[in-house]
Amino acid sequence: MNQQGKLVVITGPSGVGKGTIVKSLLSKNPHIFLSISATTRLPRECEINGKDYYFLSRLQFEEMINKSQLLEWAEYAGNYYGTPKQPVLEQIEQGKIVILEIEVLGANQVKESFPSATRIFILPPSMEILEQRLKGRGTDTDEVILNRLTKAKEELAVSHQFDYQVINDILENAIADVEDKIKN
Amino acid sequence: MNQQGKLVVITGPSGVGKGTIVKSLLSKNPHIFLSISATTRLPRECEINGKDYYFLSRLQFEEMINKSQLLEWAEYAGNYYGTPKQPVLEQIEQGKIVILEIEVLGANQVKESFPSATRIFILPPSMEILEQRLKGRGTDTDEVILNRLTKAKEELAVSHQFDYQVINDILENAIADVEDKIKN
Repeated sequence: MNQQGKLVVITGPSGVGKGTIVKSLLSKNPHIFLSISATTRLPRECEINGKDYYFLSRLQFEEMINKSQLLEWAEYAGNYYGTPKQPVLEQIEQGKIVILEIEVLGANQVKESFPSATRIFILPPSMEILEQRLKGRGTDTDEVILNRLTKAKEELAVSHQFDYQVINDILENAIADVEDKIKN
Repeated sequence: MNQQGKLVVITGPSGVGKGTIVKSLLSKNPHIFLSISATTRLPRECEINGKDYYFLSRLQFEEMINKSQLLEWAEYAGNYYGTPKQPVLEQIEQGKIVILEIEVLGANQVKESFPSATRIFILPPSMEILEQRLKGRGTDTDEVILNRLTKAKEELAVSHQFDYQVINDILENAIADVEDKIKN
């Protein structure tokens, strides 16, 4: 069966459940793929080039920037991170759905570099529930949690900039909702 | 003398000196104006409608959203904030330069609603100097400062998304640099 390939950007505040939603989509849908990022940071043990990341030199990365070969990129703590355009385009041409799970600030860039992308913003049911979820992880200090909540408020303030808003209240419903937006 | 009107977006991290640069531009250049925001929050004492803000009801604001009459907007802590398009367009038609000083997340929206805007990102000379400046204000707790610094790092990571990057090292140079970008 032939199907139309497409690029889907999934974004939203930290702790909202983006990762869980994306993992579920990938495991249930063999035609959905996660895009692979490029980075100039050193590979960690057990990370494989071309699977976990494309590991590039700064010179290679900067050449990709200059040639507009990235869907989005950022320089964070001295290292470049970004999404190479070519592999994504190839998968889309093969009728695959490619998912890009990124930060809100990065997601804006995709609007320009790939205007036909479907851009989905995942929202928490409320700030109180987001706070509970972040605390429930048990991995972050109170300070880090407060930090994430402040950032989340600012990100939620502009969630309307995206094509779709999906509330992650009941996980199964949110996944079904995202699948629905992807198929449209 | 006839001159070309234009919209200039000035953004950058908290504490970088956007406000100081904008104030200086306004006082030195009688043809440069600051855009006036609309909000649904209640006016504070001494705030004047049409000067400090356009004070609107939620219904009025939502009508502007639906009619795409805003250059950018956000809903923050239950109140709407945004920039009405019409007054800005009128000033530009009169050959005026209109400045919009906004948050990084909001600045992205202007790229879509007003593609010909000149978008300038103000950078600190370094994260250390930004930290010193935030501490020097003496208004924020350590927690708030840490929060702002974390946010600043993420914003700086995507500063390349803007048309120009101006480093606010020596204030006079930064102002001259911004004036230069505006005139181009």
